[in-house]
Amino acid sequence: MSLTNHQFLLARRPQGTVQRSDFDYAAVPVPALADGELLIKLEYISLDPAMRGWMNASEDSYIPPVAIGEVMRAIAVGQVVESRHAGFAAGDYVNGLLGVQEYAVSRGQGLTKVDPKLAPLPLYLGALGMPGLTAYFGLLDVGQPKAGETVVVSGAAGAVGAVVGQIAKIKGARVVGIAGGADKCRYLVDVLGFDAAIDYKRENVAQALREHCPQGVDVYFDNVGGEILDAVLNRLALNARIVICGAISQYNNTTPVRGPANYLQLLVKRATMKGVMVSDYYPRAMEAIVAMGGWIREGKLKTREDVVQGLDTFPETFQKLFDGSNNGKLVLQVARG
Amino acid sequence: MSLTNHQFLLARRPQGTVQRSDFDYAAVPVPALADGELLIKLEYISLDPAMRGWMNASEDSYIPPVAIGEVMRAIAVGQVVESRHAGFAAGDYVNGLLGVQEYAVSRGQGLTKVDPKLAPLPLYLGALGMPGLTAYFGLLDVGQPKAGETVVVSGAAGAVGAVVGQIAKIKGARVVGIAGGADKCRYLVDVLGFDAAIDYKRENVAQALREHCPQGVDVYFDNVGGEILDAVLNRLALNARIVICGAISQYNNTTPVRGPANYLQLLVKRATMKGVMVSDYYPRAMEAIVAMGGWIREGKLKTREDVVQGLDTFPETFQKLFDGSNNGKLVLQVARG
Repeated sequence: MSLTNHQFLLARRPQGTVQRSDFDYAAVPVPALADGELLIKLEYISLDPAMRGWMNASEDSYIPPVAIGEVMRAIAVGQVVESRHAGFAAGDYVNGLLGVQEYAVSRGQGLTKVDPKLAPLPLYLGALGMPGLTAYFGLLDVGQPKAGETVVVSGAAGAVGAVVGQIAKIKGARVVGIAGGADKCRYLVDVLGFDAAIDYKRENVAQALREHCPQGVDVYFDNVGGEILDAVLNRLALNARIVICGAISQYNNTTPVRGPANYLQLLVKRATMKGVMVSDYYPRAMEAIVAMGGWIREGKLKTREDVVQGLDTFPETFQKLFDGSNNGKLVLQVARG
Repeated sequence: MSLTNHQFLLARRPQGTVQRSDFDYAAVPVPALADGELLIKLEYISLDPAMRGWMNASEDSYIPPVAIGEVMRAIAVGQVVESRHAGFAAGDYVNGLLGVQEYAVSRGQGLTKVDPKLAPLPLYLGALGMPGLTAYFGLLDVGQPKAGETVVVSGAAGAVGAVVGQIAKIKGARVVGIAGGADKCRYLVDVLGFDAAIDYKRENVAQALREHCPQGVDVYFDNVGGEILDAVLNRLALNARIVICGAISQYNNTTPVRGPANYLQLLVKRATMKGVMVSDYYPRAMEAIVAMGGWIREGKLKTREDVVQGLDTFPETFQKLFDGSNNGKLVLQVARG
């Protein structure tokens, strides 16, 4: 049996928005396994904003950049089709950094087994995966919302933001989401139970924050950076906590990142701005998964996945994160249905 | 006895650098005291960077702006010359928000008695006053340096920075100061005992930080903002703490404040940026004054005041804070010697 693996290799460092020409779409034979290796057939690939950063030649990041000619890095879930590794058997489902490709050969490092009978596979890339852990620990460990406080989250309809807002509601906070578009804003309020939503594409965010956060913002969970971060900085309550999770508005910049010009409000409001890195919390992952699994079963935590079919659509599908056209956790299904 | 009071009234909101024409220099009669009032003859007026902010019409600050036509706000020490207040007697020395003027009438609110036999009066405006408390609590409460860690302070030869660096040394940290000019840098290392100093006017700060902070920066006490803040953000150690005390490089801007473009390093380095406001610590002032008084007596904490004579020189003397020509805590002596 000779298998062919299709894979996206990083061909050059994107300038601004990612283009198909930034990648080579290659077809290569799947190699024979050595002892200690296993072969995984990928089913769903997670598309996350952080991947845009991994494509840059940054020296100062938390993880080395993807090398030119290397398979594009991505988290994915797939099924073991062959194993010469004692810990994994054919038929097992696993989650890990498997790359944007059809098949991955692994030595088992960083793989977690997942059970498709407990939850649909894409959920392990969303609320029960990296975005969910980011939301859970970023909000509860760094943001530390108290009942009755006001929590604002940007990118609120995204994979992280939607979970942040719902956990904040579960903890008794008043929650305001910022998202792009009337549909997303309606979803936040009507389906997820947010107290209010601000459509940054049509509303004046500063004015809407004054209206919806009359006592100021106690916790701001920032996924977007840029102008929205500056608007929230001007609306902080005393002793506010800002969780810096990402800055999707800045990731495609060809000019330097826009720093938050209103950062001196940290001084005026005795506020804290702190970065959260999900990998720091992996040893505590079970705590979050147990809690969120329970909330999902109880119907308190709703999830939504935007599944796009076809590995070959990767460059264009990835772009949905940045033009805001995804609805919920963006996932690439490797096979076409 | 009819006394005349000379005072600087804010005539208009300065655009950029403060000009003499931004003030009215008025001579008015000292009014007769009512019951509960006391009259203070000012001896030394503290000139602090924060005063520049008080001149702006900002809505979002921690204190209302000085109104047009009002005496310019300033901390000062002076002697009570007449009292109809039970808590103060003629001859007492007091410290408080007395304004840029020769005489102040007060009802006693916010006044602290000081003893010129324990320390020279200008010291109550520096290490034993607001700048000293800012340094003490900002560094120890927010920065929390541990022995062996690397502490960087900007504006290091200024009233706050020089105290920050010396306390960090007392606590066993490695201390690097950033200041403008070879004389100031020599003073930091040779007199105050800093481990290294960076002359931002002549050196590449990013490169000098790499050299002097090979393990990264654990605590950064920021008095200046702007490019230097961005350079330190790129040199943070894991779990670094940034104390935002001020941003003197930005106070005379006629364009918006430059936000820290490298703030996403907070995420990469799991770092915290927090504002410090000295007034929050006034209830704990005695703790700091006892500690710093002891260190001064033991010769571990050295202080330097730059005393300029003549109330009438206020607008030009104030400018020394921003062109960096002051050496140590800038104080205006009301009388000419």
